[in-house]
Amino acid sequence: MGIRTWRRASDRGGNGGPMSIGGIEAGGTRWTCAVGDGDGGIERVESFATATPAATLGRATRFFAAVPDLEAVGVGAFGPVEVNRSSPRWGTITTTPKPGWRDTDVVAPLAEALGVPIALDTDVNAAAVGEWCHGAARGLDTFVYITVGTGIGGGVFANGRPVHGLLHPEVGHMLVPHDRERDPFGGSCPFHGDCLEGLASGTALRERWGRPGEELSESEVWDLEAEYLALGLANVVLVVAAERIVVGGGVGTTPGLLPRVRARMRDMLAGYVDSPQLGAGPIDDYLVAPGLGPRSGVVGAIELARDAAGTLRR
Amino acid sequence: MGIRTWRRASDRGGNGGPMSIGGIEAGGTRWTCAVGDGDGGIERVESFATATPAATLGRATRFFAAVPDLEAVGVGAFGPVEVNRSSPRWGTITTTPKPGWRDTDVVAPLAEALGVPIALDTDVNAAAVGEWCHGAARGLDTFVYITVGTGIGGGVFANGRPVHGLLHPEVGHMLVPHDRERDPFGGSCPFHGDCLEGLASGTALRERWGRPGEELSESEVWDLEAEYLALGLANVVLVVAAERIVVGGGVGTTPGLLPRVRARMRDMLAGYVDSPQLGAGPIDDYLVAPGLGPRSGVVGAIELARDAAGTLRR
Repeated sequence: MGIRTWRRASDRGGNGGPMSIGGIEAGGTRWTCAVGDGDGGIERVESFATATPAATLGRATRFFAAVPDLEAVGVGAFGPVEVNRSSPRWGTITTTPKPGWRDTDVVAPLAEALGVPIALDTDVNAAAVGEWCHGAARGLDTFVYITVGTGIGGGVFANGRPVHGLLHPEVGHMLVPHDRERDPFGGSCPFHGDCLEGLASGTALRERWGRPGEELSESEVWDLEAEYLALGLANVVLVVAAERIVVGGGVGTTPGLLPRVRARMRDMLAGYVDSPQLGAGPIDDYLVAPGLGPRSGVVGAIELARDAAGTLRR
Repeated sequence: MGIRTWRRASDRGGNGGPMSIGGIEAGGTRWTCAVGDGDGGIERVESFATATPAATLGRATRFFAAVPDLEAVGVGAFGPVEVNRSSPRWGTITTTPKPGWRDTDVVAPLAEALGVPIALDTDVNAAAVGEWCHGAARGLDTFVYITVGTGIGGGVFANGRPVHGLLHPEVGHMLVPHDRERDPFGGSCPFHGDCLEGLASGTALRERWGRPGEELSESEVWDLEAEYLALGLANVVLVVAAERIVVGGGVGTTPGLLPRVRARMRDMLAGYVDSPQLGAGPIDDYLVAPGLGPRSGVVGAIELARDAAGTLRR
């Protein structure tokens, strides 16, 4: 198969005429539709709660139908979603527990209604692409974008491309040490109990402490949260040797959390990874917030479409 | 930077004349030198215990000096080793605790004595390359080679190339759950105590049970070993979405171990990764022994040199 570096906006040649590229961050809770300005910015945007597939896809279709000279649309979708183009189920959200969404093809309805190519990747890979093109991971060969929100998910970029492999990396469900004396909570993950997502997601915070993360300010809460995230991110360093880790999501961007995670992660690695990036000062540039804030996903979805424009199914 | 798929032996064009490509599996315990037959086999081979740097490099040099028409030599080195070619320390084994080997340049002496380009990667990445070219991972886009011996190390292949990132992935030191009631042993890792290597390496086996792995046959020993390896490999699945995992090394290839690991890993993933490869039968083809047996490393070192021939420093 062909392997190539990403095609940045500035690389595009062609007739140079104006073209509109759209992107959808298709989350389980909200969808955000936008049109790129060709330079990592957004020209128009609309965000709405995820409803039924028909209503949600219909609203996205209406948004893009009003865009002149639409050339392609990229989708970063919640999952599990089949992103392998050689699969007959390509474009389908498969075994999601979200009511009404199981086995929903999110590509075909858009392609048919809009008559343009649709690109697709997972929401977290799209966010990683956004950060790689225009955000906090520009120019890196190998890095990880991780979102800590209702769940925990990660997009892995290696050798200059998003990694898919077997299905796609999830990151969130990795198995980490759990000291039950310090934290007797059994974990919220229906599959694994106390995997990383089961211990450190927004769902876990709410179940353990009885209130959502945004209502929790106690030191104990955030020290424990930092402990689990540091364990997970240390493993990301040790398994994929990420050159940087970008942490997004509603919980992940809680003010004050990242400095705690950095300190714990450095302690856990204990000097084993002999790299200046993991030292006291530079780790501030190693473990970072998204450069695009909450727009990594939709900007990345636009870049997915830009990269693939002309080569996808209509 | 240029990203390309691996150059297989069969891809080479040129004048078609005979060329000899050498490889060294430069381990902390033994070095193996060999010449490839151009098709994944080995034409001559010599293996000897790792002594001082001068004696060891001298012996390797004498082996290759006697090879007619030597074109290049690849080295898969124990580490930590600087494999970033833009670093002034490229080719140097850095912070190893092995006496006499700290800050040893293993590339320059070979290049100067032999007058041919030298290619370099870690021992585990070389083994991964060997398995990708001629062994159990042929044609895969994303997979992991892991060796369980005195220590535990891994080579990660993603998007058709070995991953380097920040230093290189280690895999062995990831942090995994440790049930101290079942296993009170504190772990053998001098950096992290009870990381995966600290709990499941040959060193850990010897320290926990008082005898080396090859003298241990009790079920309890191998059930516990399988438990830790399954935890580590489940995390490899969850973080890099490997399409296959190849397990080598003296401990890793202990008869009967892999079936135990497969069963536990499947239990731990609990159906979350919805892929037929992880089902009851197919998992036998997912978690496998090296196709090249103990020769993955030296065959991969030869392929490193073949891939890079003509582009390296003389």
